[in-house]
Amino acid sequence: MIIPVKKRIQIFDTTLRDGEQAPGASLTPEQKIVLAHKLAGLGVDVLEPGFPVSSPGDFAAVETISRKVQGVEICGFARAVRGDIDAAVRATRDAARRRIHLFISSSDIHLRHQLRKSRPEVVAAAREMTAYARQFCDVVEFTAMDAARTGIDDLIEMVEAVIEEGASIINLPDTVGYALPHEYGEMFRRVRLGARGGQNVSYSAHCHNDLGLAVANSLAAIEGGATQIEVTVNGVGERTGNCALEELVMALETRGDVLGAETGIVLDKLYDTSRLISGAMHFPIAFNKPVVGRNAFQHESGIHQDGLLKDRSTYEIMDPERLGIPRSMIILGKHSGRHALKDRAAKYGVALDAAELDALYESFKEKADRQKAVSDDELLRMVSSATGQQAQFYELGDVQVLAGSAPRRVAAVTVRNLQSGAEEAYTSTGSGPLEAVIAAISLGIAESIGFAGLELHSLGSGEQAQAEAAVMVEWNGAKFRGTAIHQDIVMAAGIAYVAACNAALLSARAETGQETAV
Amino acid sequence: MIIPVKKRIQIFDTTLRDGEQAPGASLTPEQKIVLAHKLAGLGVDVLEPGFPVSSPGDFAAVETISRKVQGVEICGFARAVRGDIDAAVRATRDAARRRIHLFISSSDIHLRHQLRKSRPEVVAAAREMTAYARQFCDVVEFTAMDAARTGIDDLIEMVEAVIEEGASIINLPDTVGYALPHEYGEMFRRVRLGARGGQNVSYSAHCHNDLGLAVANSLAAIEGGATQIEVTVNGVGERTGNCALEELVMALETRGDVLGAETGIVLDKLYDTSRLISGAMHFPIAFNKPVVGRNAFQHESGIHQDGLLKDRSTYEIMDPERLGIPRSMIILGKHSGRHALKDRAAKYGVALDAAELDALYESFKEKADRQKAVSDDELLRMVSSATGQQAQFYELGDVQVLAGSAPRRVAAVTVRNLQSGAEEAYTSTGSGPLEAVIAAISLGIAESIGFAGLELHSLGSGEQAQAEAAVMVEWNGAKFRGTAIHQDIVMAAGIAYVAACNAALLSARAETGQETAV
Repeated sequence: MIIPVKKRIQIFDTTLRDGEQAPGASLTPEQKIVLAHKLAGLGVDVLEPGFPVSSPGDFAAVETISRKVQGVEICGFARAVRGDIDAAVRATRDAARRRIHLFISSSDIHLRHQLRKSRPEVVAAAREMTAYARQFCDVVEFTAMDAARTGIDDLIEMVEAVIEEGASIINLPDTVGYALPHEYGEMFRRVRLGARGGQNVSYSAHCHNDLGLAVANSLAAIEGGATQIEVTVNGVGERTGNCALEELVMALETRGDVLGAETGIVLDKLYDTSRLISGAMHFPIAFNKPVVGRNAFQHESGIHQDGLLKDRSTYEIMDPERLGIPRSMIILGKHSGRHALKDRAAKYGVALDAAELDALYESFKEKADRQKAVSDDELLRMVSSATGQQAQFYELGDVQVLAGSAPRRVAAVTVRNLQSGAEEAYTSTGSGPLEAVIAAISLGIAESIGFAGLELHSLGSGEQAQAEAAVMVEWNGAKFRGTAIHQDIVMAAGIAYVAACNAALLSARAETGQETAV
Repeated sequence: MIIPVKKRIQIFDTTLRDGEQAPGASLTPEQKIVLAHKLAGLGVDVLEPGFPVSSPGDFAAVETISRKVQGVEICGFARAVRGDIDAAVRATRDAARRRIHLFISSSDIHLRHQLRKSRPEVVAAAREMTAYARQFCDVVEFTAMDAARTGIDDLIEMVEAVIEEGASIINLPDTVGYALPHEYGEMFRRVRLGARGGQNVSYSAHCHNDLGLAVANSLAAIEGGATQIEVTVNGVGERTGNCALEELVMALETRGDVLGAETGIVLDKLYDTSRLISGAMHFPIAFNKPVVGRNAFQHESGIHQDGLLKDRSTYEIMDPERLGIPRSMIILGKHSGRHALKDRAAKYGVALDAAELDALYESFKEKADRQKAVSDDELLRMVSSATGQQAQFYELGDVQVLAGSAPRRVAAVTVRNLQSGAEEAYTSTGSGPLEAVIAAISLGIAESIGFAGLELHSLGSGEQAQAEAAVMVEWNGAKFRGTAIHQDIVMAAGIAYVAACNAALLSARAETGQETAV
C-alpha cells in the first residue's frame, strides 16, 4: 500500500495585522509582543505582526518581535509605495527570517473608485515597488488586493509583472468575502498555469467570511494549488473577519485523508491561544464558534447525549482533549436524560443508586423546565438534598456590592464552609463590581485556588434580562470552570466563582478516590 | 439575451427544533409561538417548531403554532417509532399545510454504537414507519441521520425503501459537520440518479458547522440537486450549530447570478428576526458573525474607510439597509482618519471647519492610542471641547448602585441637562443593577425616549477587565444605539444609555436642519 505524502500547508498568521483591524480589537505594542511569542509557539510558519508605517507603536512592535520572537518568519506589511516599504524593511531588519509583503489593488472597482488610476499606472507601480523591495529583501510576497473580483486577464498581467521583478509568493485575496469556492479555486489554477513564470512561485490564499465561506474558499485554494493560507485566530479581522486558523487547521486535520494536506500547528495549544487572543482583543468567542466555542463539544439533546455516552464518535468528529479544551462538558437542560445526570454526578465523585437517581431526576426536570440550563453547582445542590450526601464545599450567602462612579467598588459577602459549618463575612474592593465580589469571596475559601478568568454574556432587557457568568479557576495546575445565570450580574459572577472552586475541590476528591468519604 | 430562471429554494427553518438544542438556548412554549409568527413573516417556507413527543410543553407549542401561524407549512418531528409519529400527527392536526418529518440513523457508526441494530432491521423500521406516517399525512419527509458518513450503497438502499412507501422529501444531513463540499454535493447527485424513484422526490440538505463549512456544504447540495435547505437563524443548534439562515440566504442573494437559485425570504426582516431570536435564546451574536454581527458592516482600517467613503462597493458586497440593519457605523479607532471623523460629526449635525477638524483629530488620536475604540459619545464630548459647540444634550454625573442578594437593586444618579444647565439627582430600583441605573437615569431625560435593549460583552480579568455595553433606545419610531467601555459594568451601561439618548436627540436635530443652532 502506498501512503501518499501530504502537502505541507504554510500557515501565515495575520491576527496581529488584519485581525487587529477588527473594529474595537486594537492591541497595544506590549500585547502584540506577548501574543507573537504565543503564536510562534503554536507553530505558525509566517507571522505578520503589524503594518509598520501605520504608527510608531506598530513599527516598534514589529521591530521588537523581529528581534525577540524565534522560529518563525516575520513579515512586514506595506502598500506599494517607497515609504511603506522602507518602514517594513527597517522594522524587520533583525529577524532571522523575514519577508516584505506588498499590496496594491487589482480590481476595476478599486482602481476606478479608490485608487483613481489607470491599469497601466497600477501595474507599473506594482512592478516598480516589487523591484524596489527586492533590493532589500530576498523574499517578497505580493498581494493583488481584491483579486477575487479582478478579471482573470488583468490579474495574470499584474502577477506576471511582479514575478518578473522577483516576487516569489503571490497572494490572491478575496478581500470583500465575495467568492464562491469553485470560482476561487479556479482563479488559482488559471493564474498558476496561465501566467508566465507562474509555476515557479508559490501561491497564498486570504479569505474573508462575509458570506460564511472563508474556510471553504481556503480549502478550494489549496485544491487550486495554493500552499500558504493567511488566517487569524478566532477569525477576527475586518468586518466579519478572516478565515479562522483553528477551523482551517482542524478541517485539514480531520479530513486530511481526502484533502491530502497538513499543517505544522501544535493542536493542543489551539484552545489556550484562542482564549488569550479573545481576552487581549476584548473579542468574545461565540458559543457556537467552531472548534473553540463554548458549545463546540457540548451536546444538548437526549439522543445526542445518549449516543455520546455510548461512543464518542457517534456525534464528535474531533477529540477536544487533543485541542487542549477542558473536557467536554455536557450542559444539562430540559433535554437531558437520567444517564447524563448519573454521569455528571460521578464526575464529582458522587455515586448514585437507582432510587437516588430517580429522586434527583424528578427535581432536576422541574428545575430544567423553568430555566435555560442547570449548572453543575445547582445539580450538586440537588444531589445534596436528594441523597443527603454533602456534594459541595462552599456556599455563597449574602452579597452586597456598591458600584458606580466612585474610584473604588466595594463588596461584602458571607461564605459558608459546608465542611466546618462556619459562616463568616468578608469584604474587599476591586476595579469593578465583579472583581470586588470575587475578591471578597476568595477570602472565605481556605484552599489557595487562583482566579483565572471571567466571561460574561447578557442579553434581553427589562424584567426578562439575565446574565450568564463563567468563571475559571486554577488549582494544582488544572483549570476548573463554574457557571451561573442570574438576573443580577454581580450575583451571577459570585455564584459562578464559588461553583468553580467547588468543582476544583470535588474533582480532586473524585481523583484521589475519596468519594466514599462523601 | 436569455435570462435563465432561478431555481426557487425552499427554506426549512428549524430554529425552534434543532436550534433550540443549542446548549442553554431552550425556549418556553410561549416564546416559541411569538417566534413562529416572526419566522412566518420572514418568509420561511417550512417551519419545524419542535419535537412533539419530547415534552408536553413542546407538544402544546407545536399544536398552538399549527392552529395560529398562517402562510407556512408546519412540520412535526419524530423518531421512526409509532409513539413519536402519533404525537407529531396530533400536534400538527390543525395546520393548513403540514408534513411529518421522520428520522432514523443510516451510518454504520450510528447503527453499531447507538441503535445497536442490524442494517436490515433499521431499513425495515424506516420502511414501516414511513408507511405508517403516510396513513395520516400526505407529505412525509424522511431523514437518514448521519447520511454524510453513510456508505453510498447503504444510503441508496434506505432511500429507495422510504420512497417506495411514499416519502416525498429526502433529507440527507451532515449530522456531525464532517463533509467537505464536493463530497456532500456528490452524495446528492449519486442518490438522486442512483436510487429507484430518486428523480420523483425532492431533496433537502441539513448541515452542521463543526468545521466551518455549513454554508458551503449547503450550496454544494443545491448544485447536487437539493431544493430545500434546513437552516436556523443565527446558526444556533447542537454544538457549533446549523447552517445560518441569513448566511445562506445572502449567499444566494449576492451570488444568485452564478448559483442560479433564490429564496422567498423578506430581506429587510433579517436583522430584526436575528436580534429577537438572540434575545429569546440568550444566545449572543458574535461581533464577526456574517450578515448580522456588530462588525459585519463596520470598517476599521483607514484604507477601507477611505474606500468606503468614496464608493460603498469598494469594500461592501451587501447593502446593510436592505437587511434592516441600522446604518453602517464605522467604529472610530486608532486606524481612523480625518475624513471619518468629519463624516461622523456631520452625522450628528456638527459641521467642522479645517482648524476645528485638526484640533479634534489631535485629541482623538491621543484617546484612540490609549483605548480600543472611541464611542460616538466620547467623540461628541471632544467636539464640544475642540470647537466650543455643544454637541450633547445630557451628561451622566455621579452614579451609586447597590447590588447583591437582597431582593431589590437600587441606584442613585445625577444627570446634567446641558441645554438648561440643571443637574439633579434621581433614584430607582430594578431587577438587576444595570436595569436600576438605567431606570434612574431615564427619570432625568425630559424627552420620552423608550429603552429598547441592552447587550453586554466582557472579557479579561483582574485589573485589565473591561465591559462593553451597547444600549438601544427608540424615539419617534427610529432606533438609536449608544456604546461605552468601562471597567465597571454598571458605569458602562449608564454611559451607553445616555449616549443612545444623545444620539437620538442629535440625529433628530440633524434631520430637521437645526444644525446651525448648535
